[in-house]
Amino acid sequence: MSADLLTWRDRFERLRANKAFETLVIAIIIVSALLIGAKTYEQSSHIQHWLLALDTAVTVFFLVEILIRMGAERRLRDFFRKGWNVFDFLIVTASLIPLDESEMVLLARLLRIFRVLRLVSMIPELRVLLAALVKSIPRMGYVALLMFIIFYIYAAIGSFLFAEVDNFLWGNIATAMLTLFRIATFEDWTDVMYATQELHAWSWLYYLTFIFLTAFIFLNMMIGIVLDVMQKESAEMALENGEGETAELQALRADVHQMRDQLTRMEGLLQAGEARELDKRPPG
Amino acid sequence: MSADLLTWRDRFERLRANKAFETLVIAIIIVSALLIGAKTYEQSSHIQHWLLALDTAVTVFFLVEILIRMGAERRLRDFFRKGWNVFDFLIVTASLIPLDESEMVLLARLLRIFRVLRLVSMIPELRVLLAALVKSIPRMGYVALLMFIIFYIYAAIGSFLFAEVDNFLWGNIATAMLTLFRIATFEDWTDVMYATQELHAWSWLYYLTFIFLTAFIFLNMMIGIVLDVMQKESAEMALENGEGETAELQALRADVHQMRDQLTRMEGLLQAGEARELDKRPPG
Amino acid sequence: MSADLLTWRDRFERLRANKAFETLVIAIIIVSALLIGAKTYEQSSHIQHWLLALDTAVTVFFLVEILIRMGAERRLRDFFRKGWNVFDFLIVTASLIPLDESEMVLLARLLRIFRVLRLVSMIPELRVLLAALVKSIPRMGYVALLMFIIFYIYAAIGSFLFAEVDNFLWGNIATAMLTLFRIATFEDWTDVMYATQELHAWSWLYYLTFIFLTAFIFLNMMIGIVLDVMQKESAEMALENGEGETAELQALRADVHQMRDQLTRMEGLLQAGEARELDKRPPG
Amino acid sequence: MSADLLTWRDRFERLRANKAFETLVIAIIIVSALLIGAKTYEQSSHIQHWLLALDTAVTVFFLVEILIRMGAERRLRDFFRKGWNVFDFLIVTASLIPLDESEMVLLARLLRIFRVLRLVSMIPELRVLLAALVKSIPRMGYVALLMFIIFYIYAAIGSFLFAEVDNFLWGNIATAMLTLFRIATFEDWTDVMYATQELHAWSWLYYLTFIFLTAFIFLNMMIGIVLDVMQKESAEMALENGEGETAELQALRADVHQMRDQLTRMEGLLQAGEARELDKRPPG
Repeated sequence: MSADLLTWRDRFERLRANKAFETLVIAIIIVSALLIGAKTYEQSSHIQHWLLALDTAVTVFFLVEILIRMGAERRLRDFFRKGWNVFDFLIVTASLIPLDESEMVLLARLLRIFRVLRLVSMIPELRVLLAALVKSIPRMGYVALLMFIIFYIYAAIGSFLFAEVDNFLWGNIATAMLTLFRIATFEDWTDVMYATQELHAWSWLYYLTFIFLTAFIFLNMMIGIVLDVMQKESAEMALENGEGETAELQALRADVHQMRDQLTRMEGLLQAGEARELDKRPPG
Repeated sequence: MSADLLTWRDRFERLRANKAFETLVIAIIIVSALLIGAKTYEQSSHIQHWLLALDTAVTVFFLVEILIRMGAERRLRDFFRKGWNVFDFLIVTASLIPLDESEMVLLARLLRIFRVLRLVSMIPELRVLLAALVKSIPRMGYVALLMFIIFYIYAAIGSFLFAEVDNFLWGNIATAMLTLFRIATFEDWTDVMYATQELHAWSWLYYLTFIFLTAFIFLNMMIGIVLDVMQKESAEMALENGEGETAELQALRADVHQMRDQLTRMEGLLQAGEARELDKRPPG
Repeated sequence: MSADLLTWRDRFERLRANKAFETLVIAIIIVSALLIGAKTYEQSSHIQHWLLALDTAVTVFFLVEILIRMGAERRLRDFFRKGWNVFDFLIVTASLIPLDESEMVLLARLLRIFRVLRLVSMIPELRVLLAALVKSIPRMGYVALLMFIIFYIYAAIGSFLFAEVDNFLWGNIATAMLTLFRIATFEDWTDVMYATQELHAWSWLYYLTFIFLTAFIFLNMMIGIVLDVMQKESAEMALENGEGETAELQALRADVHQMRDQLTRMEGLLQAGEARELDKRPPG
Repeated sequence: MSADLLTWRDRFERLRANKAFETLVIAIIIVSALLIGAKTYEQSSHIQHWLLALDTAVTVFFLVEILIRMGAERRLRDFFRKGWNVFDFLIVTASLIPLDESEMVLLARLLRIFRVLRLVSMIPELRVLLAALVKSIPRMGYVALLMFIIFYIYAAIGSFLFAEVDNFLWGNIATAMLTLFRIATFEDWTDVMYATQELHAWSWLYYLTFIFLTAFIFLNMMIGIVLDVMQKESAEMALENGEGETAELQALRADVHQMRDQLTRMEGLLQAGEARELDKRPPG
C-alpha cells in the first residue's frame, strides 16, 4: 500500500514537471478568462447552457490540478509553504463554494474572475515582475504617509471653507479627499476652482499650492525609486566586476610583498659575502 | 548582350549611390506627402486635375526608382534580403493597384498615405531611431501582459457591477476595457465614477485601486526601460574603457611575475656562491 | 529647592526619552486628526458636546507635553534652538488662542488642523524626508524664475489679444496667468483655444508654443534634479569605495619604491664585489 | 579730443561694470514688466497718464543704458559680436518705433512685452540655463521629425475617414493634426472617439494605436535626453578622476620596468662572478 502510494506520488510529480501539462494548465486558465469575458455579453439560453457546462469543466480541472500538485509533495505542509501555492489554493477553493441562489450569482462570478490571476503564478517571468513590484512598496511607505497628511490637511481646510459652496464635493473630509484626488489628476479641476472662487476669490491659492505640493512630492518619490533601484543594481555590479579589479590589485600586492621578502633574503646573502671579503682583507 | 546588361547594372548602381539622386527621392516623397495633404482640402476641378496628374507622376517616379534599385543589385534576391527594401517594395506596389471605382477611392488614398513612411527608410538617422524603438519592445512584453491581466480583471468586475448603470460604458468586457483605458488617461474619469457611485457608493475604491495599480506598474515599466538602456550603455563603456584598465593591471602583473622568476634565478646564483664560500672555509 | 528642580528636570528628561510616551503622543496626534475629520460631518448636539470635551483634553495634553519637553532642557533657550521645537511650540500655542465668538470659530478650526503636521515632527523618517524635499528647492529656483518669465510674457500677450473674447479668462494679467496654468495642466485647454480661434484664427500657434515651452522646461528641470541627486550619491560612493582603490594603488607604489631602493643597495654591493675581483686579477 | 573720448569710454566701462548699475537695470526691467501688467487692468485716465509717462521714462532709460554699453566698447562691432547684446539691441530698438496710430497701439504693446526677456540676458544663471536648454534641442531633432511623420500619417487617415463625422475637427489635414495634438494631451479625447465610433465602430483602434505610439516615442525621447546628459557628465568626470587612476597605474608600470632593467644588470654581474668562479676551479 505504501509502495502504491509512492508510485502515485511519483506519477504526480512527473506530471507536474511535464512541460505539456504546464502549457495545458495555462491554456485552461485562458479559456477560463475567455469564459468570464463571454458572460458579459448577452447570450441565447442555448449558449448560456454551454458556457455553464464549460465553466463546471474548468472548475473541475482546476480542482484536479491542485490535488495533483498537492499529491506530488512529500508532505502536505510542504505544499502550503510556498506563497504561490497558497494563492492558487485560495483562488481554486473560493470558486468551489456553491453560490447558486439568484442573489449570490454575482459574488460567484466575481470570485471566478480572480482565476485569471493564476496566469501570474504559472508564468515565472510574471512572478519575478510581481516580486520586483512588491519589493519597491516599502520604499514608498513614508512618502505615501507624507502625501496622506497633506491630503488630510487640505481636505479638512477644504470641507470647512467650501462645504457651503458645493456639498457634493466638499461635504465632509472623505468626499473632500476624493475631490482633492480628482484635482491631483487635473480632472476638471478648474470647474471646482471657479465654483469656489465666486465665494472665496483667493481660493486659487489653495488649489495652486496643493497641485505644486503633490506634484513636487510625487516627483521626488519617482526619483527616489529610480535612484534606489539603480543603487542596488550598481552594488550588484560592483560585487561582480568591481571586486574583480580590487582582487586583482590585492593579488598584485601580495606578489610584490613576496618579491620584497626574496630581495631581503638575497641582500642578506650579499652582505654576508661582503663581510667575508672584508674579513679576508686585513690578513691579505 | 551580357556586357550590355552589366553596363546597365553599373549605371544603376552609380545612380543609386549618387547623393543628388537620394536628395531627389526625398524631395519627391515630400511632394507626395504634400499631395496627400492637399487632397484633404476642397479643390476646384481644375486643381483636382493637376493633383491627379502630379499623383500619377509621383507613382511612376517611385516605380522607376525601385526598378533602378532592383537593377543595381547583382541578383534580385539580394534586393529582398534587406528589410527596408521589402518595406519600400510593398509600399510602392500597394499604390500601383488600380482602384478607380468610386467605392475604392478611399482605400487607394489610404494606401498612398503610407508612402510618407518611405522618409524613414531613406533617412539613416530615422532608421537608427526606429531600430532602437523596436529593440525596446521585448523589454515591455511581460509588463504589458501584466497590465492586460489587470485591465481584464477590472473590466470583468466593472461590466458585472456597473452594466446596469451605464450600458454604453460598461455593457460588455470590451467596452469596459475601453472605459478603463479612458480612466487610466484621467479623461473625465470622475463623471464615470459619480455615475456608478449613485448605485454603488463604495465604487470609488474600484477606481482608486485601478488608478494606483496602473500608475504604479507604468512607473515601474518606465524605470525598467531607463535602467535597461543604461546598463547596456555602461556595459559598452566598460568594454571600451574599463577593459583598458583591467588590461593594464594584467600587463603589470605579468611584468611582476617575470621579475620574480629573474629574482629566483639570481637567488640561486647567490646561494651557489655562498655554498662555495662555505666549502672553501673549512680548509681555510 | 535646586536639588528638587533638578529631580524634576531628570524626571521630564526620562519621560521625554520614554518610547511609550512617544507612542502616546503620536496616538494623541492621530486622535486630534480624527477629531478634526469628525467635525466635518454633521452631528447631534450630544456628540458635539463630547467632541468639544475631547478637543479640550487634546489641547491640554499638547500643552502639558510641550511644557514637559521644555522642562527637560537645561536652559529654555536650548529648547528653541531646534527648528522642530519652534514648529511644535507655534502649532500648540496657536490652538490655545481663545476664539469662541461665532465669527472666529472657523479660524480656530483652521489653526487646529495644523496640529496634524506634528506627526511630521514626531516621526524621524518623515523629518528626514521633508529635509530632503527642502534641500532640492534651491536647485529649482532659477528654473522656476525662467518659467515665471515665460508665463508672464504669454499672459501679457494673452490679455492684450484675447480679453475681448473672454473677459473671465483673459481679463487681466493675473487671470490670464491662472488660465495659462490651466492650459499647462491640459485642463479643457481646447475649449479655451477654440473660443479664441474664432476671432484670431492663428491663435493655435500661441497655445502650441506655450505647451511646448513649458513641457520642455519642466522636463529639463526634472532631469536636472535627477542628475543633481545622482551626482551627490556617486560623489559619496566615490568617497567610500573609490578612495579605497586609489589608496590600494598608492600603497602598492610605495612598496615598489621601497623595493627599488633595496635593489639599488644590492647593486652597489655587487658592483663593489666586481670591482674587488677586478682589483685581484691584474696581480693574479 | 581723442583723450577726451577715451575718458568717456573709461567712464562708461566703469559704469557698466558697477554692481549698483546692474541692479538698477534689473529693477527698471521689473518696473517695465509691472507696467505691462498694469496696462491689462482698466484704469482711470489720470493713472493712464502716469503709466504713459513711466513707460516713456523706461524706454529712455533703456536707450541710454544700451548707448552706455555701446560706448564702453573699444569698437562698435565688438558690441555686436556677443549674441546677448544683439538680443538686447533688437528689443530696445523695437520699442522705439513710433506706433501711435490707434491701430498700431496693440503691436507697440506686444513689442514692449519682450523687454521682460532682458531679465534673461541680465542674470547670468538664467543665461546658463537657457544655453543648456538650447543645447539639448538638436538631440530631439530627429525624434521630433519621426513624431511629425506619425502625426501627418494619422492626420491624413483621420481627415479622409472622419471629415464627414465632424468637419470642425477633421475637415482638413491641418485641423486634423491639431485634433491629434489634443488627443495626445488626453484633452476630451473620448468625446472625439465616441463621435467617430458611431459611423466607424472600429475607430477606437485608430485612437489607441496613436496614443501608444506617441506616448512610446515621447518616453523614448525623454530617456534619450536623460542618458545623453548623463553620458556627458560621466565623460567629464572620467576626464577629471578616471584619468588620475589610469595615470597612477602607468607610473607604477614605469617603476616596475626600471626595476626589471636594474635586475637584469645585477643578474649580469652575478653571472660574471659565477663564470669567474668556474674559471678559477679547474686549476684549483
